[in-house]
Amino acid sequence: MPMPSSIVRVELGSRAYSIVVGSGLLESPASFRDLPRASSCVIVSNETVGPLYSSRLADALDGIFAKIDTLLVPDGEAHKDWPTLQRIFDGLIEAHCDRDTVIFALGGGVVGDLAGFAASCYMRGVAYVQVPTTLLAQVDSSVGGKTAINHSRGKNLIGAFHQPSAVIADVDTLDTLAQNELVAGLAEVIKYGAVADDAFLAWIEANLARLLARDKPALIEAVTRSCRIKAAVVAADERESGLRAILNFGHTFAHAIETGTGHGTWLHGEAVGCGMVMAADLSVRLGLIGQAHANRLAAVIGAAGLPMRAPRLGIDRYLELMSLDKKSQAGRLRFVVLEGAGKAALRVVDARAVAPTLELFCA
Amino acid sequence: MPMPSSIVRVELGSRAYSIVVGSGLLESPASFRDLPRASSCVIVSNETVGPLYSSRLADALDGIFAKIDTLLVPDGEAHKDWPTLQRIFDGLIEAHCDRDTVIFALGGGVVGDLAGFAASCYMRGVAYVQVPTTLLAQVDSSVGGKTAINHSRGKNLIGAFHQPSAVIADVDTLDTLAQNELVAGLAEVIKYGAVADDAFLAWIEANLARLLARDKPALIEAVTRSCRIKAAVVAADERESGLRAILNFGHTFAHAIETGTGHGTWLHGEAVGCGMVMAADLSVRLGLIGQAHANRLAAVIGAAGLPMRAPRLGIDRYLELMSLDKKSQAGRLRFVVLEGAGKAALRVVDARAVAPTLELFCA
Repeated sequence: MPMPSSIVRVELGSRAYSIVVGSGLLESPASFRDLPRASSCVIVSNETVGPLYSSRLADALDGIFAKIDTLLVPDGEAHKDWPTLQRIFDGLIEAHCDRDTVIFALGGGVVGDLAGFAASCYMRGVAYVQVPTTLLAQVDSSVGGKTAINHSRGKNLIGAFHQPSAVIADVDTLDTLAQNELVAGLAEVIKYGAVADDAFLAWIEANLARLLARDKPALIEAVTRSCRIKAAVVAADERESGLRAILNFGHTFAHAIETGTGHGTWLHGEAVGCGMVMAADLSVRLGLIGQAHANRLAAVIGAAGLPMRAPRLGIDRYLELMSLDKKSQAGRLRFVVLEGAGKAALRVVDARAVAPTLELFCA
Repeated sequence: MPMPSSIVRVELGSRAYSIVVGSGLLESPASFRDLPRASSCVIVSNETVGPLYSSRLADALDGIFAKIDTLLVPDGEAHKDWPTLQRIFDGLIEAHCDRDTVIFALGGGVVGDLAGFAASCYMRGVAYVQVPTTLLAQVDSSVGGKTAINHSRGKNLIGAFHQPSAVIADVDTLDTLAQNELVAGLAEVIKYGAVADDAFLAWIEANLARLLARDKPALIEAVTRSCRIKAAVVAADERESGLRAILNFGHTFAHAIETGTGHGTWLHGEAVGCGMVMAADLSVRLGLIGQAHANRLAAVIGAAGLPMRAPRLGIDRYLELMSLDKKSQAGRLRFVVLEGAGKAALRVVDARAVAPTLELFCA
């Protein structure tokens, strides 16, 4: 008997779309019936995910699109750059893609960001569908329309807000995910509980073993509840001018870790896991939450198998890296801090106030 | 006594903005009072226009922005490419620009497209102001939010719709414009009359000598009336899904000329002038307008000093180049044709029907 799939709607007016979460979605043409009509589509994937799933997706799309091309890009965060984007543009031109072409981003966050940004720029914007195959992408990067490439001076510095036409999150694709990638995705799942839904955080604590064992109903529930929180936040603040920033809990530290060690050295979710522990510590030092709450969060992050200590880059280097973060404004450092159970806010923090946290976790 | 300036409003809801057309605007701080509040701005210009006008603009902005940087890029269509865009990104990062930085695009269409596309992508989008210094940019490219760079395989293939916060069109900057650039701009002015306002076309016929002599009140009237037509079309169809396509009258042929001869060999407006004569001829052959109407349009285009014959690239090469145009869909050729005085429409045209026009103008 097929497992029931769930649908989360992202309410964005003329740019509204559905996230479908379930098992067996990838090979089912029914998953792709409500897309914009077009004669051609291109599946963009990477050299790891493509061989595993692209023919399954192409089979499901056969009969919906008269012409289906597949473009594979190299795997890894190190390739989320201009040369790879250029390869995608070249491939789209080779395939004679026009303004009606639909792009399918089949892969993790890197493929989603690259293919989504390509879709936003190609002929000034074509439709795309996110088909995320990592837990991180299913709960976070595939939802909300943030696309980007990295610049040598910072992560995601060049990009666009470009909403997908749909997100198809098939938990079956998590079967082939490396365990450290699964764990990295759990960091973002935990994040949603921490910043917006304490009952969900309690559910994660109670079901962590099932999630780590890839129990499908548990994964469907975790992805659905995460997407529901993200969809509500995105609908309220599409372009991250306010509320949406809370989804960056742990990310100011995380981006500094990723840039400072070189993109791809740490998995993004690993950096976020460590960054959340650090941001919770900062929240305690600012008198916003008690130590017990920070300890509880650290416990579930540690139990998931996420790293709890940041690399030794030196405190000055951390402060320099964080001042380049998109969330910093006019030279001040901005952090998402916890203000209670399931409650977060963006705060401007003086560099001196951050130093003790950096000393504790990076020394 | 200062000449009165006029204001054209582009009604786009939350993205609405004003086009101010006049003389003496560039050095007046009052021109820039209604912009988004920010602590820093960057003037992007080129090596020709920058030395002439950037310090005048910087002086006007002093007191509005605490920090003002200037970035100069090489002059010319050949530089509307990724390496130049990358230089702008590098400059924005060097200047520590954040999400609140306002970019000023001071120059012609190339600078506007480059700086506008950079603004659309930098940190996923910052505000920008168009300060067009060519007639072409004042009446066309600075209004409507279309930004792009060229790809070796086609013009404007990579870009975004990103509306400016304001357009400041100071006709004083046309004083330093080369005559062939002024003439190229008149091609787009004539276009507005041809596709949307026959009374304006008659005004252009009657005032062509004043325009060619750079009479300022005549220029202010031509720019204002052109912008009024463009603003109405853009408000009705921001993303060029229908009506807005009529503004591409002559452009399918023009883009083929520009790509076929190498970007920068023909001025865009020159190619549009020739392309309009060709598109009018095609309209006659399709039985949509009489020969007399096509002759009248050709007469004003010729009187303006625009080229009337296309380069000899071979008919097959033209058809190949036009099939890559963004306006072609699923392999069919699409042209904007005239359907009467001040009336245009988008039509799908069979390649065979276009051949006689190509033979007449390119043989």
